[in-house]
Amino acid sequence: MAAGPVEIPPAVLVNAALPQPHHRTKGFRLAFKDVVDGLQRLFFTKNTILTMAASGTGGMEASVINMFSPGDEVIVASCGAFGQRWADISKAYGLTIHQIDAEWGKAVDVNAVAEKIKSVPNLAGVMTTFNETSTGVENDIKSIGELVKATNAVFIVDGISGVGAMPFKTDEWNVDVLVVGSQKGLMLPPGLAFVALSEKAKKRVETSKLPKFYFSFAKGLKLMVGEELPDTPFTPAVSLILQCREAIKLIEKEGIENVWKRGARMAEATRLGVKALGLKLLASANFSNVVTAVDCQDGAVDPSKVVKGLLGRFGISIIGGQGKLKGKIFRLGHVGYVDELDVLATIAALELVLKESGAQVKLGAGVSAVQEFLLKQGN
Amino acid sequence: MAAGPVEIPPAVLVNAALPQPHHRTKGFRLAFKDVVDGLQRLFFTKNTILTMAASGTGGMEASVINMFSPGDEVIVASCGAFGQRWADISKAYGLTIHQIDAEWGKAVDVNAVAEKIKSVPNLAGVMTTFNETSTGVENDIKSIGELVKATNAVFIVDGISGVGAMPFKTDEWNVDVLVVGSQKGLMLPPGLAFVALSEKAKKRVETSKLPKFYFSFAKGLKLMVGEELPDTPFTPAVSLILQCREAIKLIEKEGIENVWKRGARMAEATRLGVKALGLKLLASANFSNVVTAVDCQDGAVDPSKVVKGLLGRFGISIIGGQGKLKGKIFRLGHVGYVDELDVLATIAALELVLKESGAQVKLGAGVSAVQEFLLKQGN
Repeated sequence: MAAGPVEIPPAVLVNAALPQPHHRTKGFRLAFKDVVDGLQRLFFTKNTILTMAASGTGGMEASVINMFSPGDEVIVASCGAFGQRWADISKAYGLTIHQIDAEWGKAVDVNAVAEKIKSVPNLAGVMTTFNETSTGVENDIKSIGELVKATNAVFIVDGISGVGAMPFKTDEWNVDVLVVGSQKGLMLPPGLAFVALSEKAKKRVETSKLPKFYFSFAKGLKLMVGEELPDTPFTPAVSLILQCREAIKLIEKEGIENVWKRGARMAEATRLGVKALGLKLLASANFSNVVTAVDCQDGAVDPSKVVKGLLGRFGISIIGGQGKLKGKIFRLGHVGYVDELDVLATIAALELVLKESGAQVKLGAGVSAVQEFLLKQGN
Repeated sequence: MAAGPVEIPPAVLVNAALPQPHHRTKGFRLAFKDVVDGLQRLFFTKNTILTMAASGTGGMEASVINMFSPGDEVIVASCGAFGQRWADISKAYGLTIHQIDAEWGKAVDVNAVAEKIKSVPNLAGVMTTFNETSTGVENDIKSIGELVKATNAVFIVDGISGVGAMPFKTDEWNVDVLVVGSQKGLMLPPGLAFVALSEKAKKRVETSKLPKFYFSFAKGLKLMVGEELPDTPFTPAVSLILQCREAIKLIEKEGIENVWKRGARMAEATRLGVKALGLKLLASANFSNVVTAVDCQDGAVDPSKVVKGLLGRFGISIIGGQGKLKGKIFRLGHVGYVDELDVLATIAALELVLKESGAQVKLGAGVSAVQEFLLKQGN
């Protein structure tokens, strides 16, 4: 019940135990084509999707170094630790950063982005986060995309933890560069980053002057655009790509819209359960359906005891805070392979762990709030 | 029977089918410690080993960008496509390159390296390849290490395909930066790069001025040096790391020296089989025990027919040439999970495929040469 790496469905796990083909065989390349085609459907895009052996941050850095040149003016719209990462990467590469910082727990203010766009005449790019995992907040990508579309800037979105889990329409929302990781909504082990590139982004690849080699989009695009079967410039993470094909099958069997709905239900159930225990949510609006952050800053609950208790006694992995929220919150994930029973069990375990750690909690209060919500929802 | 990605032992495959722990749990970090400790033994080093979610080339680029600053003078000692990669990466980052090119099929001339070292007064680094996969040649890392040791330069070795398969002593041979990939001698799926850093290399990390983020060794070292349990700055490729622990167990059960000996036997058996069929080896000395390159430049055999025939009829993956040897050679791998039966079967299949493609070949000649060698060797 962490916000990723998530639990992996058995069918996806078992797939990695099969003998592995060499990546230059037609068999593998056909499978890779299934993956790329499937991801286009799941990401709601016709854009070219590049696949890299890297964690999500590698995909973020790849996006920066392939879109920009030294000194380029960029807006970073941040509302947490992962938004800040765009600024950190941009700084490492000498970009001129115009940063918008929302209070952690709140979403990026679209009007502030609109104002900032007007104030930067030579704007090269706008970077933000879809689902801010560090705070459990969803940003309004559609509205920001509308603003960036009218400029020469490219719109770069960290969709690592949110895409696949919450409604996301790459093309309709005018996202030029979308970064997605394997270990969240796609229910895979970590180790793959996907980047979907619009035509506007592909043109930018040709002029970008930041140094690059392994993460070169030009090298990647050469093996994707106009090719019958996709390929990668360097050895791909074969086992993870084959697992991805399996995961896409599972998602499409359920239907991506149904996955989104299930995610929304599990998130709402979790929030209701937590609130019924007298705990406070960090966010007050724009709730993420990927992860719920519980605010412990009033000192009534020690978040590290919750994290340790759930793992030690029940084997449930959740996470504490990161960055400036370290030691101040705990986070319950509900992304991927998570159902009603998982939420019920987690809230029940949470009640026990809270009680044992000396917190004021009425046993059963969280569970019954979840039950009542699920009863109303039907099955 | 490709030179990697190699066949994966069942015990390693099956490991990826187990439920996966979150990477922030103590259970995972203990497993990760086993991996790092085990790799130190297999690489014969006390140096700090960083683990990255990336293919081997990512590890190579990481080494360049963490060791050097723009304009630094480096020697690239190349004898094939992978040696050339050091030059390509160095060029992408604006280094001043002094290149030594051995004829493809021959090893790097150690005397030429010695001369070059004398001619570059402000030498910052020397880069070369242990096993040149594109030609099936092994370079004399020990002798080059001896030369570089006496300078202020760091010695960087691409051990991606060779380490784990052929005798390699990182510390004894004065290798400052060793890059190893997962999909060769370690018998894992592709997707992990390991980099072992000497004290000299670690000092260089502090002064290197090339831009970096995901591949920052400074970030990686902070979580490794002096820590009880190792960690990575970004989400690690959990499933591959756990598979690595299993692979290390298998290698140490056989004994790393015995793995090297088996590799040498399989390589010699392959060379004898190939030669008994009237085929020519590309190399004439410094044979790699990882891969045997068969020279088809006299036109008697079409290498693409061999590659297609072995895969299509027998399901045996081998590879053709790359770079300037494309269409001119085929390569038989014998690294990792390969035994006598694999070599016998491959040579038998090769005979059939050659015969069917119209080449002059005496059926059984290759197999019996292998058999006689194995008989002499005993079991």
